[in-house]
Amino acid sequence: MTAPPTERTPTLADVARRAGVSTATVSRCLNTPDRVIEETRNRVLQAVRDLGYSPNFGARALAAKRTNTIGAVIPTMENAIFARGLQAFQEELRLKGITLLVASSSYRAELEEEQIRTLVARGADGLFLIGAHRDPALYDFLNRRGIPTLVAWVHDPNAPVPTIGFDNHSAMLDLARRVIADGHRHIGVISAEQAGNDRARARVAAIRAAMDEAGLDPDALSLVETAYGIDEGAAAFEALMQRTPRPTVVMCGNDVLAVGAMGRAKEMGYDVPGDVSITGFDDIELAKVCSPGLTTVHVPHRQMGTRAARALISMVSEGTPGQGQRLDTRVVLRGSLGPPRA
Amino acid sequence: MTAPPTERTPTLADVARRAGVSTATVSRCLNTPDRVIEETRNRVLQAVRDLGYSPNFGARALAAKRTNTIGAVIPTMENAIFARGLQAFQEELRLKGITLLVASSSYRAELEEEQIRTLVARGADGLFLIGAHRDPALYDFLNRRGIPTLVAWVHDPNAPVPTIGFDNHSAMLDLARRVIADGHRHIGVISAEQAGNDRARARVAAIRAAMDEAGLDPDALSLVETAYGIDEGAAAFEALMQRTPRPTVVMCGNDVLAVGAMGRAKEMGYDVPGDVSITGFDDIELAKVCSPGLTTVHVPHRQMGTRAARALISMVSEGTPGQGQRLDTRVVLRGSLGPPRA
Repeated sequence: MTAPPTERTPTLADVARRAGVSTATVSRCLNTPDRVIEETRNRVLQAVRDLGYSPNFGARALAAKRTNTIGAVIPTMENAIFARGLQAFQEELRLKGITLLVASSSYRAELEEEQIRTLVARGADGLFLIGAHRDPALYDFLNRRGIPTLVAWVHDPNAPVPTIGFDNHSAMLDLARRVIADGHRHIGVISAEQAGNDRARARVAAIRAAMDEAGLDPDALSLVETAYGIDEGAAAFEALMQRTPRPTVVMCGNDVLAVGAMGRAKEMGYDVPGDVSITGFDDIELAKVCSPGLTTVHVPHRQMGTRAARALISMVSEGTPGQGQRLDTRVVLRGSLGPPRA
Repeated sequence: MTAPPTERTPTLADVARRAGVSTATVSRCLNTPDRVIEETRNRVLQAVRDLGYSPNFGARALAAKRTNTIGAVIPTMENAIFARGLQAFQEELRLKGITLLVASSSYRAELEEEQIRTLVARGADGLFLIGAHRDPALYDFLNRRGIPTLVAWVHDPNAPVPTIGFDNHSAMLDLARRVIADGHRHIGVISAEQAGNDRARARVAAIRAAMDEAGLDPDALSLVETAYGIDEGAAAFEALMQRTPRPTVVMCGNDVLAVGAMGRAKEMGYDVPGDVSITGFDDIELAKVCSPGLTTVHVPHRQMGTRAARALISMVSEGTPGQGQRLDTRVVLRGSLGPPRA
């Protein structure tokens, strides 16, 4: 497609002129189409198409001083970790005619900040972010600009914005207690980098807490930090299995790492869970598909996305401060966890 | 966070005043920071932060009449089908300081159109879309607005915009020939809905073409169309296996459907590939992780994303019409395909 000299952006008045109706009728067609007879509506919509008029930038936005756009920044689009929750979030926005624009920060704080500023500059009515930990100056910026912001994937009543999510600490604590109850004493952990990732920090701390309450030494935890990825999980698993004492269970910070660990275990000739148990976190599709199935923590992703959307919509449209919500997780037992060999 | 009355959007001049420098120095700090001494740069960046100034909306955009934002619309964020290519696309944009905003259309044409119009209204400098098939009026709109647009996931020299991708027909033809060479005569196919999905149509047509050239009746193909999803793949597989003649191989339109089919095959007590072979398309992580491994078509997702980014950047920055590119795919043989039982 060649790019000819750009035409003037068409206005509501241009649409009205072309359709032979008043601008008020065009507005009604776009905002309350049921109140316009079909023939007129069709003529107006044809004019909208002919002129390439963008209603979002026209009547609706001017009328409400809003763009009907919500921005989201998620840490990654890979591996579907955030996809299901985000999909539910978008479906709920959709019911209100709101478009979702998403940026992906590769778990990098400085990139997230840039993306947040871009979304604000591009007119986002509100923001949806993952995890509450970020530079207070950034929260200040959003506050000064009056951009309603909501955080998901954690529940933290002390965060500067409403959070809708689960308690990462108690979610992982449940799983760690179960692992220890199965008889495991030498626990390996593969975690995302804890610095700047409040979810990862809470999950590792929970495993140490479970060890402590069972009379095990929390400092004996054998920990590797790595990026979230299947290959990274595999490499970290191999490193852990060369340490002394060799762990009898490897608890992973998410399902993606765990699936990588499971693949490498097979390649190294280990039986799972006979030689070594492996656990995950999230309960994404991968956890059900791999063999044996992955014992993990089920996170109510869709519920989280839907509730976050409803809360953010009311923050944007009613100007309310918004209310955090805590959702429950549960341990899902599948074949990858068993007692250690005597 | 409460939403106080919104302050006036800070300008370049506000930043200059606060930092005690000229507006030209602020521009230099934002555009060519290497040409500004560190002390000055730090003072300016501090002022940018203090005021919550968004450089994207300020000097850079005004200077170049650009926003340094590229918009993408992908059919879905679930199941990581588009994630790897999009990640590579974003990484390449990143090198040029361009922010990517993504919308997800749930494979719905009317939603895609709305998202495209929103991205244009929000000032996207260029658009990245999946598949070439869409309402010509939409291409006209983009052309009139002078928005450089590039399509990936297909290569189609006749499309109205440059396409960077692979030939879906020849990619699936390679796999279908291999399946037939293994001795399969009763072929089941699970496809996405073909209407409005040029990739799905090309893949099904290729299987029929391979049957035809092998002297099989293309109309004997046993086809189920469904949404892309693991559960949908499972249900479609079950339906296919109840038909007469029962297929000895089920070729799936993508890996997600195939993994669903594989899971249901196990539940129904079928040995894969002893009782029935299963194939996929894409070669995403799932294909390697499932057991047996999935025979599929490897798509060079990262390469596609990187090249698409480079082409679109030059379309945007140099105003060139852009050039399509065809990438090669290859069949990856894993355990899920074998000869049918005699």
